[in-house]
Parts: sequence; structure tokens; C-alpha cells
Amino acid sequence: MSFIKNILIGLQKGEVSLDETLRTLENLPYEDLGHSRLDHHRELRQGVAEVIYAEHKTEKQVADIASALLKKQGWFLATRVSEPCYRYSENEIPSLQYDADARVMYVEPSAKKEVGLITVISAGTSDYPVAREAALTASLCGNKVKEINDCGVAGLHRVLDVKEQLAQSRAIIAIAGMDGVLPGLIASLVKVPVIAVPTDCGYGASFGGVAPLLTMLNSCASGLTVVNINNGFGAAIAAHRINQNGERSVEV
Amino acid sequence: MSFIKNILIGLQKGEVSLDETLRTLENLPYEDLGHSRLDHHRELRQGVAEVIYAEHKTEKQVADIASALLKKQGWFLATRVSEPCYRYSENEIPSLQYDADARVMYVEPSAKKEVGLITVISAGTSDYPVAREAALTASLCGNKVKEINDCGVAGLHRVLDVKEQLAQSRAIIAIAGMDGVLPGLIASLVKVPVIAVPTDCGYGASFGGVAPLLTMLNSCASGLTVVNINNGFGAAIAAHRINQNGERSVEV
Amino acid sequence: MSFIKNILIGLQKGEVSLDETLRTLENLPYEDLGHSRLDHHRELRQGVAEVIYAEHKTEKQVADIASALLKKQGWFLATRVSEPCYRYSENEIPSLQYDADARVMYVEPSAKKEVGLITVISAGTSDYPVAREAALTASLCGNKVKEINDCGVAGLHRVLDVKEQLAQSRAIIAIAGMDGVLPGLIASLVKVPVIAVPTDCGYGASFGGVAPLLTMLNSCASGLTVVNINNGFGAAIAAHRINQNGERSVEV
Amino acid sequence: MSFIKNILIGLQKGEVSLDETLRTLENLPYEDLGHSRLDHHRELRQGVAEVIYAEHKTEKQVADIASALLKKQGWFLATRVSEPCYRYSENEIPSLQYDADARVMYVEPSAKKEVGLITVISAGTSDYPVAREAALTASLCGNKVKEINDCGVAGLHRVLDVKEQLAQSRAIIAIAGMDGVLPGLIASLVKVPVIAVPTDCGYGASFGGVAPLLTMLNSCASGLTVVNINNGFGAAIAAHRINQNGERSVEV
Amino acid sequence: MSFIKNILIGLQKGEVSLDETLRTLENLPYEDLGHSRLDHHRELRQGVAEVIYAEHKTEKQVADIASALLKKQGWFLATRVSEPCYRYSENEIPSLQYDADARVMYVEPSAKKEVGLITVISAGTSDYPVAREAALTASLCGNKVKEINDCGVAGLHRVLDVKEQLAQSRAIIAIAGMDGVLPGLIASLVKVPVIAVPTDCGYGASFGGVAPLLTMLNSCASGLTVVNINNGFGAAIAAHRINQNGERSVEV
Amino acid sequence: MSFIKNILIGLQKGEVSLDETLRTLENLPYEDLGHSRLDHHRELRQGVAEVIYAEHKTEKQVADIASALLKKQGWFLATRVSEPCYRYSENEIPSLQYDADARVMYVEPSAKKEVGLITVISAGTSDYPVAREAALTASLCGNKVKEINDCGVAGLHRVLDVKEQLAQSRAIIAIAGMDGVLPGLIASLVKVPVIAVPTDCGYGASFGGVAPLLTMLNSCASGLTVVNINNGFGAAIAAHRINQNGERSVEV
Amino acid sequence: MSFIKNILIGLQKGEVSLDETLRTLENLPYEDLGHSRLDHHRELRQGVAEVIYAEHKTEKQVADIASALLKKQGWFLATRVSEPCYRYSENEIPSLQYDADARVMYVEPSAKKEVGLITVISAGTSDYPVAREAALTASLCGNKVKEINDCGVAGLHRVLDVKEQLAQSRAIIAIAGMDGVLPGLIASLVKVPVIAVPTDCGYGASFGGVAPLLTMLNSCASGLTVVNINNGFGAAIAAHRINQNGERSVEV
Amino acid sequence: MSFIKNILIGLQKGEVSLDETLRTLENLPYEDLGHSRLDHHRELRQGVAEVIYAEHKTEKQVADIASALLKKQGWFLATRVSEPCYRYSENEIPSLQYDADARVMYVEPSAKKEVGLITVISAGTSDYPVAREAALTASLCGNKVKEINDCGVAGLHRVLDVKEQLAQSRAIIAIAGMDGVLPGLIASLVKVPVIAVPTDCGYGASFGGVAPLLTMLNSCASGLTVVNINNGFGAAIAAHRINQNGERSVEV
Repeated sequence: MSFIKNILIGLQKGEVSLDETLRTLENLPYEDLGHSRLDHHRELRQGVAEVIYAEHKTEKQVADIASALLKKQGWFLATRVSEPCYRYSENEIPSLQYDADARVMYVEPSAKKEVGLITVISAGTSDYPVAREAALTASLCGNKVKEINDCGVAGLHRVLDVKEQLAQSRAIIAIAGMDGVLPGLIASLVKVPVIAVPTDCGYGASFGGVAPLLTMLNSCASGLTVVNINNGFGAAIAAHRINQNGERSVEV
Repeated sequence: MSFIKNILIGLQKGEVSLDETLRTLENLPYEDLGHSRLDHHRELRQGVAEVIYAEHKTEKQVADIASALLKKQGWFLATRVSEPCYRYSENEIPSLQYDADARVMYVEPSAKKEVGLITVISAGTSDYPVAREAALTASLCGNKVKEINDCGVAGLHRVLDVKEQLAQSRAIIAIAGMDGVLPGLIASLVKVPVIAVPTDCGYGASFGGVAPLLTMLNSCASGLTVVNINNGFGAAIAAHRINQNGERSVEV
Repeated sequence: MSFIKNILIGLQKGEVSLDETLRTLENLPYEDLGHSRLDHHRELRQGVAEVIYAEHKTEKQVADIASALLKKQGWFLATRVSEPCYRYSENEIPSLQYDADARVMYVEPSAKKEVGLITVISAGTSDYPVAREAALTASLCGNKVKEINDCGVAGLHRVLDVKEQLAQSRAIIAIAGMDGVLPGLIASLVKVPVIAVPTDCGYGASFGGVAPLLTMLNSCASGLTVVNINNGFGAAIAAHRINQNGERSVEV
Repeated sequence: MSFIKNILIGLQKGEVSLDETLRTLENLPYEDLGHSRLDHHRELRQGVAEVIYAEHKTEKQVADIASALLKKQGWFLATRVSEPCYRYSENEIPSLQYDADARVMYVEPSAKKEVGLITVISAGTSDYPVAREAALTASLCGNKVKEINDCGVAGLHRVLDVKEQLAQSRAIIAIAGMDGVLPGLIASLVKVPVIAVPTDCGYGASFGGVAPLLTMLNSCASGLTVVNINNGFGAAIAAHRINQNGERSVEV
Repeated sequence: MSFIKNILIGLQKGEVSLDETLRTLENLPYEDLGHSRLDHHRELRQGVAEVIYAEHKTEKQVADIASALLKKQGWFLATRVSEPCYRYSENEIPSLQYDADARVMYVEPSAKKEVGLITVISAGTSDYPVAREAALTASLCGNKVKEINDCGVAGLHRVLDVKEQLAQSRAIIAIAGMDGVLPGLIASLVKVPVIAVPTDCGYGASFGGVAPLLTMLNSCASGLTVVNINNGFGAAIAAHRINQNGERSVEV
Repeated sequence: MSFIKNILIGLQKGEVSLDETLRTLENLPYEDLGHSRLDHHRELRQGVAEVIYAEHKTEKQVADIASALLKKQGWFLATRVSEPCYRYSENEIPSLQYDADARVMYVEPSAKKEVGLITVISAGTSDYPVAREAALTASLCGNKVKEINDCGVAGLHRVLDVKEQLAQSRAIIAIAGMDGVLPGLIASLVKVPVIAVPTDCGYGASFGGVAPLLTMLNSCASGLTVVNINNGFGAAIAAHRINQNGERSVEV
Repeated sequence: MSFIKNILIGLQKGEVSLDETLRTLENLPYEDLGHSRLDHHRELRQGVAEVIYAEHKTEKQVADIASALLKKQGWFLATRVSEPCYRYSENEIPSLQYDADARVMYVEPSAKKEVGLITVISAGTSDYPVAREAALTASLCGNKVKEINDCGVAGLHRVLDVKEQLAQSRAIIAIAGMDGVLPGLIASLVKVPVIAVPTDCGYGASFGGVAPLLTMLNSCASGLTVVNINNGFGAAIAAHRINQNGERSVEV
Repeated sequence: MSFIKNILIGLQKGEVSLDETLRTLENLPYEDLGHSRLDHHRELRQGVAEVIYAEHKTEKQVADIASALLKKQGWFLATRVSEPCYRYSENEIPSLQYDADARVMYVEPSAKKEVGLITVISAGTSDYPVAREAALTASLCGNKVKEINDCGVAGLHRVLDVKEQLAQSRAIIAIAGMDGVLPGLIASLVKVPVIAVPTDCGYGASFGGVAPLLTMLNSCASGLTVVNINNGFGAAIAAHRINQNGERSVEV
């Protein structure tokens, strides 16, 4: 709050008038540092820098924001990026990387941290894109990430095989479509926080992901939490919040 | 089809006129034996005698139908029977039995058969009434029935413990509310036909049983079939149809 | 369980240490034979070998899995296969067959069994793809299958005509879109187990198959069971489970 | 339009000023005869007199409107009348009649007409209240009415038995809960206009009548029309409109 | 029932054996005239000949059925016909007509009847295709049809203007999307039977026609009946049933 | 903002330290005057004082808040108040008034303003409670209010009769259940802002008010806005916001 | 009402017969000026001229209506116009303008009014098309309009920054997809009427705009009103109605 | 795994036969310690001891399980306990405590831990029961808990006031009904993991908590996770999992 502090010191010293001080304070965003909407403020506040959601943006808009973010913070991440949209940005950003499965475009920070452990586990091959979005997002936010794919409950032993690996994580992102059973099963096997992500894969009555969403919300395994359908990004940020808990000093 | 046969023989012999024969045949129910709607016909046709669904009937209506069925076939079964409704019938039918959990009222046939094996397994204590309705119905229809209760997936080992028992059945009725995971898990463990029954037990977003219903319809374990919410009776009849398959000679 | 047995004999004989035995058992999948996820295990457990669901897989993924399965078990089945996906696999698998209606790709086992009888009956021409998927799946799993198409209730006599044929089956798969009436009608006419499959054919308020799904779940004909919308494959496996009941010896 | 005519003759004759005429016409209801909202106008316009829907009205309100209607037109009809509500009115209206099943309260017109034929057929005992509401409403509106109850499709022969009777009607009201199959079946058997009424009877996934409503809207039998859940009254008015078609001379 | 009669006379005369008679009767469709599923039977039974629903059929299937129907009954009607599908049939059926708005393909009967009057009224330009499907279907079934288009309630005077025209019909088909208000308004203005057709036109929360469907089902104007979303064909058959009522002699 | 001003003047004068000023500002609600959550602040901010929503509060809680508000602002308003809840408060607040229809409890301000004109019009008798809640709320907020009841579209002339009265309002609250047609009809007749309130009155498929809600959201009459089901209070505040527009000077 | 007046004066003077007068009045639209459906009548009645909704119209239809409206009133507005549709009209209307974001095509009136102030605020970049449709519509209807874009609640300070600007409006249109929080937040900050517009932007469980629609209908900030999903046009007309309130003299 | 170890040592020593060992292992629950289903196993596995969900259990069942758990682990917790159910148990368990708001019954452990910090914040008075259930559950599981009540977004300053307090937590449980805005707002202000709990409080279109559930799932503030409607218990266990993360050593 150095900006406010300076204004008030100016008032105290008589260098700033009362009127000017009042006018400045009147429209001041809460705990904002200045007049602009700087990106590093969100990181301070929410613990994650601004990420580009490319779905409804033009190719030029995405490229422009990406360039600006890259300049300011040395890295960036954009989700739901189509291949043409990536091709457009590729010309302007030399070090650009693109994950076609996850539809994620990014430039890695020069010194990426790898804190704690987030495990991303998905039930079927068709859940892979959502799993990749989650894994890449979590990784770029500075978390250590492990991925376990095609590990559905139809073959129960496949899940039991990875139990120990799951138990060593600080947070688990469990992804499933169809009946959405995997996350609840994992939550019943380990004491780690589990974030469930329903996907829209499945026959008719999965209703675009509603069926696994409801399964997860009603899980008998207590302590399971859920994010939106196909929202690998959101699950990654939630896991990031949990994983970073261990790194900061919480004084109570 | 002895009734039709007799009419035709009468016509052949000249004892019955063409007009009379035509009139008789005109309104004849398909493969029905006479003018009345006899109860044993449904048993011949569908393999199950008529059962009383008491929900919207008056106490007197239930008692009357029960008495009539009892007289004709020596036993009967009524589902969704409230305690007062049972009390009303109790006065008229001496040997009447009532299961308060299942809300089922019945008189057992003097010589009950116990064919094959149907296993009724339920996930939680709150699914017990539906499980009892299923078990009693299946039993009274002449099937051998075993019950396994409070066997939810939150404690996975409880399910694995009874695997062998399940594998020995000709049909399994698996009952669960909340996330409805149990039936799919069982279907992934055994090769026996599994009939899933969702119940309306659960927190808000189970929506009166819709959540487990969708879980079951979308089960990754192939070959699971589903009946209506809380419909223990229907599941029992489906299991009865399967279980009786082994008893009758199927000539193909 | 020969794998476990060998480990234990090793322990008994002093060839394997207690620590090593414990470590092996700790992460052991329940009743799995080894470290790998062998396909014939699912057949042992669920009674059906693994089937390829091609919907969200790449053409190469489908072809690879198909080749692997073919090598190991001498046949395979893939559902929801697009024509281009089939063309891709065609080059690698000489004896490959494709049913364009059912969108099913397969190689038949050299010695296909034809056990019992499953009848697949569908209400309208538009339900034919789902019916074909069911019939082909059931047939390849080793069941004798008969198909009856375009047999809707709008012309009731068409259904009554095939009643005897239906009554001779061990399981019936009844498929209908729009009002979904056919399966319930059949269940009221015969004592055979009936599996209902709703399809997504119909005008606006069929809501992609929800209307026939609800009709079937609420059928007045007791004992009807239901699978997911358009899920001909699932219905076939359920019928297979029922039909195979008659073949194995059930000792109770 | 005698009221308007008189005003205009007055203007023509100079007995009424232009201003007065304009003021009268300005707020004049379309084709209404006067300033008041007379009940016989609705009958002229819609072919049915005003009927009391008692659901959200106080006992006194119902009794007052009933008395007023009775005075003016010699008869009246009130639907959704609770027993206490009827008891309240009973004291004030000597010739009052009450049908406890239909929850309908009425005084018959002294000379009731019995035109054409409307058949009211219902599938189960639990649909009886809706059937009675429909039958009583149609009867009091001056139509000849026949009732056929407990005629569900689970016993198909019961429906086929009454086919001829149905075919002789000018309009059929077909009422069913659960799977709602009956109306479509009837529409496939006869050429008479069929009005389907879903009821809220059924297990969980009938969703208060949504299941039969959707069945009826999606009926394969073309030409079926549908009214709201439990709306026996509305179906009766629709049938009345159709039945009265035959009585009035339509000049085209 | 001449077919049955002949069989029985043969039995009576000794020309047909009892066994043969029984075998013939056993699988006999109810009131069907022979072993085949002749098209003119549906017309006898339901009052409308079979109509082709082209949606899920191949171009060849449609052309084949069309040719067959044309040969037998001298005319035919196919709904939901795409332009390419029409082009395919055009080569084989010389006198073929196609209405691109209604997506209806047909050959008119040589002597088309024009009985009574059905009025088809639609609210907006976007409802026109459904209105045309209804009008063409009703016309080809032998009814006199008048069309009133773009007559929405946003300009109330447009509806009031056509009131007299509506009142002269034997049946009215009222079509509307968005808020679906038109049919109820019409039913409140005239005593003619009104059939409401919701369409899928509208902004987001019309949910593909659910909004106008619900409006119509809940109409305050009593006696309104409803068909499925966009189902102009079904409404036409319902109106045809009503309109033909006046032509046949109903003996009660 | 006198509170902030005083703090800053203190800082300017040296009477308040920088630290104290910063601490005060840090947790300061945006434009709030002090540390407490004073009720008159909401009035300043939103234009309406705090109103008690009694639904989930205990009788004592309601009475306590009512007394506190009364003391501070000389009047208060509580909605969704049951009769027993009113009886409880009656003992403590002498001048208390209660409207049993609206379930609203209040004490009028000594000098109530009557600004502009808000008209509250409802379609049926059963919509009256919601209409009363809206009218009382709007009136107590200082608006002139007129009520028009039982004015449904089934009798169109009743609506047309009050058109001029409606046109003179600054805002109209139009309330309807069942098909919810009234508000759209009014919006097509006048240029005044119209706020639509759906109610939960109606037969089965009104789904607790969903049907009229959708009708209103999809109204063909452009410019209609909608509030929650049965939310007469919310509609009143919206109308109040509009009506008060005319009273304050808007300098742009 | 000059047309009616002239008729009546003719009657008074004996120049028009009583019969002719009656015939003219009989089918007269309420308060319509003549036999035709003139566009300026809607403006008189509803306060807004007819606007073209291009969604389901052919390119030629749109161009024809546009030309006709332009000729009569000197300007016009068409919403939901695709680029090809615009290209078609461009050839016929020289001064035509097109906003590709809003998909709005228009010719401005020569002397556009700019009355009061409507502020259009949207939460994210993806809500921009709806915001533009609202802003352009409101502007062309003669209102002064200000736009604030990309002002979501994820960065709360962005909203607080524009609070004063919002408070100076006569009406606010607040547009948001995903969680739809923005409009309620604004309504809690200012006393201006706020119209909420949900958009269909968002992940799976936003269900095409249902999630923000429900958020807005349930807003804790009292007085918020809502229009249909993506309906920027409807919100603009509602705001126009409110904004024009200040301009006309309301005599109560 | 001492039980398995002992068996194997027995085998190693020759005291247990290979057959007996195999039989024991065959049906062994995965990582279970013995033949029984001991309660402390769930604590080992999931990190939380078994909790009684009293909703569908009889008073006797609840009391019996409570006594058993108390004996074994020295404390217990039961949720959804009605007052009569509590009264029943009170007689048998002397130190029993009951929270009537939360409907939670419990005996505290003799040495309760207070680890980290979980903050439970709720939007309105009507959300208090759910908040209490969450707070009590979290507290009894050994977490330090702070509660903030009646802190809705309608008065934004109330939320901003507690920002610092929220920022100091290891996990936040944010509870809201109606529009469900609070949790997302909090997640946008702090970097702590936030668990959202929708409640069923609200007007009609909150649909028993669906509206806030959807708001939360679609929150623009990334990283928000959601549990079932009214599921304070589940949210507490999820927060417990997160909070306990900081206490155990995670070796990666």
C-alpha cells in the first residue's frame, strides 16, 4: 500500500491538498497499488498470475495479450488455444510452445520452480486433453507434477496399483467422464486433498458431463471437492493453492 | 389355448354356429383363455402373478384385492403398504405378514420354491427398505435370495470381501443412493448379470435419486442394467426373469 | 493365482525373503496374475474381453490396440468406428470387417460359439444402427443372435406377429426412440428378461433420448431394465451375461 | 353487438354526442357487450362458461362465486375443491353435489344436454381422480360421456377389448401416469381424436408426471395431442370443443 | 374380418383342418386382414395412410418407399426431406413436387378432397417451415386448409383482425416459438378446437422450444392441446382427425 | 464521506498519526462512513433501506431486528412473515401492522412520500399474495402505488380495459403464474417499463413457476425484464429504482 | 384515433351509413389508425419502432424489410445479421453500416437524439458482442450510451473504479457469462435501475447461459431485473423505456 | 500390516500351511489389518475417523453406533441428528453434547488438537446451520476453526473488512445460498484454498440450491472448488485434508 502511504505523507507534509487526497481515495480500488490494472497484482492477491482464456478471443487479441504478459513477467500461459490461433502467435513469439492435446500455448519461465507434488490422474484416454491442461497449468505455476493416465475403475487393480504414488502427493487432481467414479474411489483410499474434474466424455445420458459431475458432488468418500466440467485449468489452480500452502509460513 | 380350441371343435362339429364363433373371437384378448381377466394369465404370459401396488389405493381396495388374490392363488404380495393399510387388512386375512422396513404385506405360498440364487446387496443403511422390498419380492416369486447390507464403496474392502459370494449368484440386485457407485463396481468384478437400483438417499444435488441413476446408466462397467429410482420390486422381477431362465427348457 | 502361489512357495522354501514377499503383495492388484494388465483377466473377471471404444481415440491408437488384441486373443471388436478410422486400420489388419450401419469394426474369432438365443428387436428404421451394434457385439461374444427390425407399436400387429419368436429367447434387447414404448410392450407379453435401449431419434421434446429413457424406466411392465441412450454395446453385454448364465454350472 | 349498435344509432340520431361516443368506444373491450365482465360472454366466445378453479381461493371466495354463477346461469362447476371447502359451500347452496374422488363440486343444469360421445379411459386405479374430473366436467358441459377405468397396457388384451367402444366416440380422453403408454396405443388403434392426460403417479423417475408427458408428446401414433399433467379439466374442455363441432353448422 | 370368416367357413365345411385353423389364428394380428402389413390398413384403422418420415432414412430408402406407396395408393407424402434427398427421388418419380420451406415431398392424389376447414396460423416468419409442413400435410389428407402467417401477439391487432376467419374453422393449428403465446390467445377468442405447436425459434432460454411448449401446456385458456416441438405433421393429423369427425356418421 | 474527511483533517492538523490513519483506512469498507454496518448506508448506496427477509430467521431474531430498525429509521418492513412470527413481534412493537395475504409486517414511516406511480397488476386471484407483497413494499419505499387484480388474458377485454391506466405509470409490475402471458401482453401495449414476476401457481408442468418464468424471459414484446419466482419484493425495489429516477436530478 | 373520429363524424353527418360504420368497427384493431399494420404505430404504442430480427429470415427478406423501413422512417436497425446477409443488403442500401462484433446492420437517423444516459458494462471480452448489440440498439433508439468493457469481478477493483460513472446513469445494462456475478455486484453499489444480461460464455456447467441466468435471478442485491440469455437487444429496449421515462411528462 | 506379516512368518516357519495362507489372502481386503472392519482403519486410510450420518437411521441405530464408536476411539460425531434422536441417545451417553443449529451430536475427544486454521464464512443468517455443521466437524477433527457469519456480498464492505482474517487461514469454507456469490469473491481476494458450499436458501428459481451450485462451479475466480448442496460436513473434511497437509511430512 505504498501508493496510499505516499499520498498520505504528502498530505501530512502539506505537499498534497485535502481535496486532492480525497479525490484520489474516492475511486481507489481496494489495496490496488496505482491507477492501472497491473498483472502482478493478481498474483499478489490470488497467488496466480493472469492466464489467457483464448476461447472467445480473436487470434490477434490473444497474441497481443501474450506478448504483453511475456514482456512483463517473463512467461505466460494461454488455455483453449486452437491450432490456427497458435500459428498466428508463433510468428511474433519466438520461444513459443504448444501442446496440441491440452490446447495450451505457453512460454516457460526461465527459472521454473518445482514445489511439493501434485498428481494428475485420469480415467480414460478420452480424458487426456483435460488432464494435460491441468498438468501443464500446475507445472507452469511452479508446482512439481506427476501424471497417471488411463487408470479407470473398470479395472480396479489399475487404481490400487498407484495408491502409494497418490498418497505421496500434496494434492490430487482426479479426472473422469462417463460415470465419474474414479475421484471418489481415490478419496476413499488416501488422506490427500482430492479435486475432482468431470469431463464431457460418454454416451447419451452423461448429458455433456452432468452425470460425472453429479457422481462427484454426491461422492460417499467425504472430503472430495469438484470443479466445472472439463475445467482442468481450474483444478490446477485449486491444487496450486493447496500445494503452495506448505511453502508459505502461516502464522496463526 | 384350450378355450379357443373348444369353440373351434364346436364349430367343426356343428354344435356352435359361425356367428357365435365370430362374436366370441372378435373381442378376444390375444391368447387369453376366456372372457374374464384371470390373474393366472399374467403369470403364464409374463412369468409373474399380479402384485398389488398399494400407493394410491384405499385401504379397502387393497384388502379386497388381497383377499381375492389369496383365494385364487393361495398367496399374494402387496408393495408400498403403509402401517394403517396393513392394520386394516390384518382383520380380514388371518395369516397376513408385514415387513415394516420394506412396507411389504404378504401371505406366503404353502409350498414356496427356492430356485437358483439372487443376491441383493445394498450400499448403506438408508438403502435397506429398497433392498428388503427387492429381497421379499424375489423370495415370494420362488427364488432363493441372499442379502448383503451396508456394503458401500467408501470402505472398498467391504465389497471385495463378498466378491465370491456375489460370483455364485445367477443375478445380482445392487442398490445404492448418493453417488450410486456400488453396482458398477460389482459389475466390474463379476460376470453375473447385475441390476442396479438407484435410491433417493443423499444430500441436495442427488436430486431425489437422479445422481445415482445417471451414475448407473453411465457405468464404465459394461453390461450393467438399471431400473427406476427406489424400484426394488421391479429389480426383483427382472432378477426373477433371469433366474428362472435356468429352470425352463429353452428350445432353440 | 499362480503368480501369488509361486511367490509364497518361494517364501516357504526360503528362496524368497519375507521383505520381498511383503513388498510384492503390498501393491498387488486384487486377483491379478502379475504386474501387467493382461486382457484375458477382464474376460475371466467380467466374462467379456476388452472391447475398443473408438470415439475419442486417434486412428493410430485404435489400429494399435486392435492389432495387439488380435494378436493375443485371435479376434477383437471396436465400436463407434468412423469410416476413415476403419480405412486406416484396414491397411494393417488383412481380415478386417466393418459394419457401416453399426459403425463396428471387427475380426471374428476362428471358432465362434453360438450359445442360447438373444433377440434384438428395434422399433424403427432410424434405430437400426443401435440394433446392429447390439447384434454384432452379442454375436462376437459367442451368443446366437436373431434380429427383428422396424417393428414399432404404431402398427401393433407387427409386434404381436413376432411374439412366439421373442418368447423363445433367453434375453431380448428391445430398442426404440421417440416414445420408447416397444420394450415395455414386449415385457408385458413374454417372461424372458428384456433389456431396453433408448435411442436419440425423435422430434424436439425427445431431448436426445431422454423421453424414451424415462418411458422405459417407468414402464408398467415389471421387470424391464434399461441401459444408456444409444448404448447397443452395453445392452449386448448385459444380454450376454444373462445368456451365458445357462451355460455355466451354478453351484449354490 | 347490440350495445355498440345502440350507441351508434344514438349518435346517428343526434341523441349522443361525438365526444361521448368516442369516450365509450375508447376503452371498450373487443366485442364485449357492456361495461361489465358478464359470464355468458365467455360462453359465447369460447364455448364454455366460466368454471371455478378453487385451488388458491378461500372457502368464502369459492362459495360467493359459486352462488353468483348459480344465480345467473342455473348451474356451475368448481374443480380442485377440498372437502372442507365443499362443507363451507354446502350450507349456502342446497342442491350442491360433491364428487370426492374428482374433488369437483357442482350443481347440474336443470336440462342437461347429452350431445355426441366423449370416452374417458384411464390406465390405472391411481389415475381415477383425474379421469373423474375430466368425465364430470365434460358431462356438465353438455356432452354424453362414457368412462372406462383401470385399463392399462400391462394387460394389452384389456385395451383391445374396448377398441370398438373407443372407435364410436367423437373424442377420447386417455389418461395415464408412469410410462404414459396408453394414449398412444389408443391413437394407433382408432381414427378418433385422442387427447392425452399425463398424471403424476409413478416411481421416482416419473418426476411428477414428466415421464408420461414426454411419452405422450413423442408418441409414434400421429395425431395425439396432450394437455398439462393431471389436467382432467382442460382435457374435458378440449374434448368438448371437438364434440360440439358436430352440433354447430360450420359454413365454409 | 372377411379373412378370418373364410378360414372359419372352411373349418365349418371341413375344407380346413382344426390344426391349420389354430395355427392361422395363433399369430394373427388383431383385426388384420392377412399375413402382410398392408398400407391401407393403417388408413382404415387410424384414418391416415402411412407417411414417410425421411429424417434418418437413406435417399434410396426414401425413394423406394415413395415409389411403392405411390403405386399402391396413387399419392404419397414425405416429411423432413432434404433437397438432395428430393433430387434423388425426382429422377424416379416424374410428377414429384417439393416444398423447400416445409421440406415436404409429395405427389398429390388425382382427386383430392377438400373437406371442412383447418386453419393454420403462425406467429412469426421463422415459424413458417413448421406451418407449411402442417398445411401441406392437412391438405394432402383431404382437408380444406387456410394459412395465416406472421401474426404474432406483439402486434395484438393483427390477431384480432383474423378472429372471424379463425372462428369459421373446424380445427385451428396455432404455431409459435419464443414465448409461445399465440395459441392460448386464440383459444381464448374462439370455441373451435385449437392445437398448439411450439417451435424451436428463440433466444437462449427458449431451450430449443421448451419455453413455448411449457407456455402452451400451462395456458390459461382452457381446452388447448399441444403436440411436440416443431411437429407440424402431428398437428395436421390431429386436426385431420377432428375435421373428419364432421364427415363420418357417428352412431351412438 | 464526512468520517474519512475528519480523519484526514486530523492527519493534516497533526492530531492523528499516519499509522492510525493507515490502520483506519486499511479495513475501511468502500465509501462506508464508519466501523459499523449502519442501515442508512445501504439506503444511500442502493436507494433502499435494509428490509427483513424473515423466512429462515427465528421469531426472536425478526422481532429484535425489527425493533432496532424501527428505532433508527422510524419505520421498517419485513417480508415472508408467518402469522405466529407476527404475533411474537406484536407484543413488543405497539404500532405494528400485518398484511396476512402478503405475509408482510411493517410500521409505516410517519411521513410517507407518494412519488410518481407504480402500477401492480396480477393475472389471477392466486397471484394476489405476490401482488400484495410488491404493492406494500413499493408503497413503504415512498412510491405512489395502484393495484389491479384478477386481470388475466383468458378474458382479453379485461386487460384492454385498463390500458390507459397502465400507460400513465412510471413503472408496471406485472404478475402471473400458469402460462405467464400477462406481462408480455402489457409490454406490447404500453411504452412504460414493465417488470414481470412469475408465480408458482399452476398445474403440474408449470414446475413451481418455471413455465411462466420462461414465457417472460422469451417474451416477443421487447423490453420486458424479469425477477425471480414469487419475488414481489424484488420487483417492487426494481420499480422503485425506476420510479425514483424521475425525482433525482441526473446530471450527465 | 383520427381514423375512427372521421368515420364517426361521417356517421353523424349522414355521409356514412350505420352498417358501414359497424362493419368498419367490427374488425378494427384496438387503437389502430387504419386498415394497414403501419410501423409507426408500434412506436406510438411501445415507444420503439419495429426492429428486424434477421436470424431466421432470408437475405432477400431482410433487405426488403430494411428498404421499406428506411423509406418510411429514415433509419432502421437489424440484429443478428450475418456478414453475407449484410453484403446482400449493401448493394441496395447505399448508406448502410455494419457492426461485425454486434452483428448489427443499420442506417442512422439523420438527426439522432442523445437523451439521458444508459451505461452498458460487460464482464469479459467474450461478452463484447452482446454488449455491442445492446449499446448500438440503445444508441439508435435515441439514448446517450457509454460502454465499459472487460470489467469482471475477478479483479474487484476494476468494478469499484467505475462506480461513480455507473451512478450517473439513468439505467445500467450489466452483461456477464460464466458465474454472472457482475450485475448483482453493481446493483449493490448504486441506486440506478440495473438490467442483467446473461451470456452463453463459459465452461460445461454454465449450460449455455443457464448458470449466469440463475445467478442473476437469485441476486441478493434487490431490484435487479433480468432478460433472456444473450439478449442485448431486449436489455437495450428495457433501458430505453426507463431512460425515456425522464423525458416525457407523467401526469398522475 | 502386522496381520499379513504374522501369517507370512507362520508360513515361513512352517506353522501355517500354504493352502491356509492362500485362503486367507484370497478374500483379504486391500491393506486391511484383520478380518473385521475396524474404524481406525478409515482414519489411517482417509485421515478421518468414521462419522455417523443420522438422516435415515433409527434412533436406536444411531445410539448404538455412537456408543460403540465412543468406546473405541474416545469421541464421536453424528450429523443430521434431530432433537428427538438426540434425546434418545442422551440417556445412554452421559457426556453427550448437541448443537441444535447444526443438528450435530458429539462427544469431544479428551485431548482435542487445534492445528493450523480453517475459516468458515457464511453469507446470511439462513446459511448458519450449514456453517455450524462445517465448523463443528472441522473442530472435532482436530483443526483450529474460526467462524464469520452474516457476511453477504449485498454489503460488499462486510466482506472486505474480514479479508486479512481470511488470508491467514490454511483453508476457507465459504457458504452461501441464493446467488452463491460469496465464495468466488473470496477466492478472488486471497490465495488460500477456498471450498464453496451452496445452500438451499432462496426464492423459487434457486431450485433448492442449484442456482448457487452453478454459480460456484462457474466462478470466474480460478481455483474455487465445490461440494454438494448443504454439505457442511463434506466441506469440513476437505478443509481438514488441506489443513493437515501442513502437519505431516511429505517426502517427495
